Amino acid sequence: MSDFDDCLIRVADALAETARQETLRCFRSEALGVDNKSGHGFDPVTAADRAAEAAMREILSSERPDDGVLGEEFGPVPGRSGLTWVLDPIDGTRGYLSGTPTWGVLIAACNETGPIYGVIDQPYIGERFRGGLGRAEMTGPRGTRALHCRAPRPLDEAVLYTTFPEIGTRAEAQAFQALSSHVRLTRYGMDCYAYALLALGQIDLVVEAGLHAYDICAPIAVVTAAGGIVTDWQGNPAHHGGQVIAAANTEIHARALAFLNATG
Amino acid sequence: MSDFDDCLIRVADALAETARQETLRCFRSEALGVDNKSGHGFDPVTAADRAAEAAMREILSSERPDDGVLGEEFGPVPGRSGLTWVLDPIDGTRGYLSGTPTWGVLIAACNETGPIYGVIDQPYIGERFRGGLGRAEMTGPRGTRALHCRAPRPLDEAVLYTTFPEIGTRAEAQAFQALSSHVRLTRYGMDCYAYALLALGQIDLVVEAGLHAYDICAPIAVVTAAGGIVTDWQGNPAHHGGQVIAAANTEIHARALAFLNATG
Repeated sequence: MSDFDDCLIRVADALAETARQETLRCFRSEALGVDNKSGHGFDPVTAADRAAEAAMREILSSERPDDGVLGEEFGPVPGRSGLTWVLDPIDGTRGYLSGTPTWGVLIAACNETGPIYGVIDQPYIGERFRGGLGRAEMTGPRGTRALHCRAPRPLDEAVLYTTFPEIGTRAEAQAFQALSSHVRLTRYGMDCYAYALLALGQIDLVVEAGLHAYDICAPIAVVTAAGGIVTDWQGNPAHHGGQVIAAANTEIHARALAFLNATG
Repeated sequence: MSDFDDCLIRVADALAETARQETLRCFRSEALGVDNKSGHGFDPVTAADRAAEAAMREILSSERPDDGVLGEEFGPVPGRSGLTWVLDPIDGTRGYLSGTPTWGVLIAACNETGPIYGVIDQPYIGERFRGGLGRAEMTGPRGTRALHCRAPRPLDEAVLYTTFPEIGTRAEAQAFQALSSHVRLTRYGMDCYAYALLALGQIDLVVEAGLHAYDICAPIAVVTAAGGIVTDWQGNPAHHGGQVIAAANTEIHARALAFLNATG
């Protein structure tokens, strides 16, 4: 492993550690403060969300001062190195505010082609999924485990995850339903944990819409490192967000894409 | 605490411990065996499910030979003591088979009036929720915490959980939607963990349909001990299963019941 790779992995772990502390401080506390970021609907931002991103940015400004930063909570910082850190301090704020343990911290290092390394951290459960730069592994309370996506299986035996049934626009929801009606099981509500399950070889597909870059860059790195494939619904790179399909292998990716686009 | 209470609590913990070992043995393993219990649709039963219930029954036959047993996997055992143990070795088999950490083990001790003590155990996360016989507490990796349901709040600020959006019959789904459209946030996919979140004071409502007694007896004990209320959709006792509403307090219970029955 090169010094460069080693540095990125070390910095990403440091970011995950500080975000873990900051996000756990308020988790399940009665004092949890909720803003309404969007002004309509339910889009909570917590003090923990902001504190965690601020703490991560502080580490980056000292350890990687030439890199750019793109985060959910504060404005983008342009870089000079060609490397940008893409940060989501709490992916799954609705789950976080409900006490659900499966929200996570997303950290990715991207170059001009997309994510080259990513971490999906689960502060409450104590799991960390790392992918890229030759790594594909989960560490957790039960030790370390290599990440491998599942082998191909027929669509009618596949397990599909998404965050909520009211996915995206009306047209996107119809496309999702066209796919959902052909798989064995559709489950909801896992946020970034669904991509971790895909990399663990537990499920076959994750389909979402309306994502931001900071929602998907780390999952792309982890899933790809585990042998999976992540694209948009047209089969193009997905690291800018929008419509995303993550699949355990190219075979089931192709089968699922056909249904997503059948009604389009 | 009486010797009787002490014995029930001790036996329930022993049941939870053995079920934890048996269920974790196969969790996320590639060798996970799946039967199709219903013959149609997706109703997985795993070797772990059966092994865990068998191990619990073995403890009961030696420690509480006069009590009855009602479990998901094997036939009912009539008792002579007036006490029946109601067991679900894996609540959330679909989640279990997808690698999701929020499936649980449900254990309840019931007399002729319903559950008097219950445990919701989370083997993978390492949390155990106990309610009844004067107890209402969670133990976990971060220590012990008392369980208290939330104070009343308006329905349009409430968080509602259910297992999946395709809840129950068509009429039940319509009633659920009538309620869901009036709350702040509806989330899916937590199985028994939703009742634990209710007892932790994190959410306001859990609404489900088509439950069995073994799905709900332990949640009733835990939620009730935490100050909440669990009934069927008509406000009657719910420990036989069917349509269930669990609420943080009587105020929000009444508000939610009105919507569930508006279309009935």
